[in-house]
Amino acid sequence: MKTYLDCFPCIVKQALEASKMATDNENLQREVLNSVFKILPNFPLDVSPPEIAVNVHRIIKKISKNKDPYKKVKEEFNKKALQLYPELKLKIDTSEDRLLTAVKLAIAGNIIDFGVAGNNFDLNNTIKEVLSSNLAVNQFSRFKNDVLNNSSILYIGDNAGEIVFDKILIEEIKKYSKANVIFVVRGEPILNDVTFEDAEFVEIDKIAEIISNGYDAPATLLSNSSKELKKAFDSADLVIAKGQGNYETLSNIDKNIYFLLKVKCSILARDIGSNVGDNILKSNLV
Amino acid sequence: MKTYLDCFPCIVKQALEASKMATDNENLQREVLNSVFKILPNFPLDVSPPEIAVNVHRIIKKISKNKDPYKKVKEEFNKKALQLYPELKLKIDTSEDRLLTAVKLAIAGNIIDFGVAGNNFDLNNTIKEVLSSNLAVNQFSRFKNDVLNNSSILYIGDNAGEIVFDKILIEEIKKYSKANVIFVVRGEPILNDVTFEDAEFVEIDKIAEIISNGYDAPATLLSNSSKELKKAFDSADLVIAKGQGNYETLSNIDKNIYFLLKVKCSILARDIGSNVGDNILKSNLV
Repeated sequence: MKTYLDCFPCIVKQALEASKMATDNENLQREVLNSVFKILPNFPLDVSPPEIAVNVHRIIKKISKNKDPYKKVKEEFNKKALQLYPELKLKIDTSEDRLLTAVKLAIAGNIIDFGVAGNNFDLNNTIKEVLSSNLAVNQFSRFKNDVLNNSSILYIGDNAGEIVFDKILIEEIKKYSKANVIFVVRGEPILNDVTFEDAEFVEIDKIAEIISNGYDAPATLLSNSSKELKKAFDSADLVIAKGQGNYETLSNIDKNIYFLLKVKCSILARDIGSNVGDNILKSNLV
Repeated sequence: MKTYLDCFPCIVKQALEASKMATDNENLQREVLNSVFKILPNFPLDVSPPEIAVNVHRIIKKISKNKDPYKKVKEEFNKKALQLYPELKLKIDTSEDRLLTAVKLAIAGNIIDFGVAGNNFDLNNTIKEVLSSNLAVNQFSRFKNDVLNNSSILYIGDNAGEIVFDKILIEEIKKYSKANVIFVVRGEPILNDVTFEDAEFVEIDKIAEIISNGYDAPATLLSNSSKELKKAFDSADLVIAKGQGNYETLSNIDKNIYFLLKVKCSILARDIGSNVGDNILKSNLV
């Protein structure tokens, strides 16, 4: 997805929010904003928003000298989500369609996002809302069929905390399919995005191989990614990509990708043809 | 009021919205954003937000070669408000306290603001809401007493359309008081702020003298204003200042000023000690 002019006010807002997470020093926060104002004119609109975001967050980390501003938040939501784990498993056990419920929960978990919507979300209400409504874009039967009939799945995670919901979906997938599942994490801390440490903490390593994208973008920029990720991406029969950042960088790629996400901004909503708040399971293939 | 770091994302958002009003050319809109990014680092935080805004809007007018981007919108809302005039007068005629109702209507009219909240407002619902609720900050009895016992009132307008509501309040004030009323308009087009042309169109000149602040800020920057305004400001017993911009530039002045406004942003809400959406009649004196 390209960057729209409407993305710029949002990028500035995110930069300020992230600088506040990184430091309490208002002078440094201002320095971040001024440095962001300096680089924004350099980006052509045909880059994706995460390609700008990665540079913005590098500025924040450099100026604040804080390499992982969202560390506490990531730990907090990994723990919160793990506490919900038994309850979420029970919801699946008592549901009519286990895989569909697991898919919906994985989409609900995508609300744990400090990038697009700031820290203004309600996880428990989102779980109720997603489970009780239909997906706005719903390619579930095709998804189910693909999961059953393919032997290698690359699952690209998005945020800490959310990964507990991903773990649950992977556990369900493994009940239906003998596919080998590889779980992808970000190469370095960026926002509250999942790193290797988070994935290990919630024990995804017990059910899937974990690989790093080798890069500090809140998305999957294939051209900048590790050889390991590129190889895994090319050889996967099926990719499951969580969240808005992965959509923004992978939606134009010719590959069997399913995007699972909650739509959190009007620009993405317009690109997908849906509304803010919608829950999406969308194939990349027509 | 000083500028807060949180004002910057909002200033960028307003710059984009205003550039879209000024031109359909996306390249020029981008040029506006880039020029705004260039000047924002220059402002110390002790300037008020309108001092930044005036420079932003000068950029927009220069790059788009459109001297009055909100011309149509101003005409539209002057006409819409004039259509409401008989209905609003009837509301006053049938109310228990005519002056209070007129004050509330003047605050309701402040919703017609393309600066702070964009074009996302509902005038009719706002009128109902304001009339049926109490003011969050309410210094009405003091205001009424001051209006009755002073002989010169300077009424500083804010937006086109809204000025019909101001006209109605001035008509009521003149029923209670023999005070001379001077109505202040902006010196040049800026956002949808009231200019001389608008005030004449709704015939405020029939009930008050109209003077210009001689300046293109969406606010009252006394140091930059016309001699005429400075003199009128100094000699007025009482100032009525409408809207957020006037509050931001006058709230620190030692003068008997009443601010009538609808709170439209969280930064101002924090400064006033109220909430977004609140309706305010606030004296500048303790």
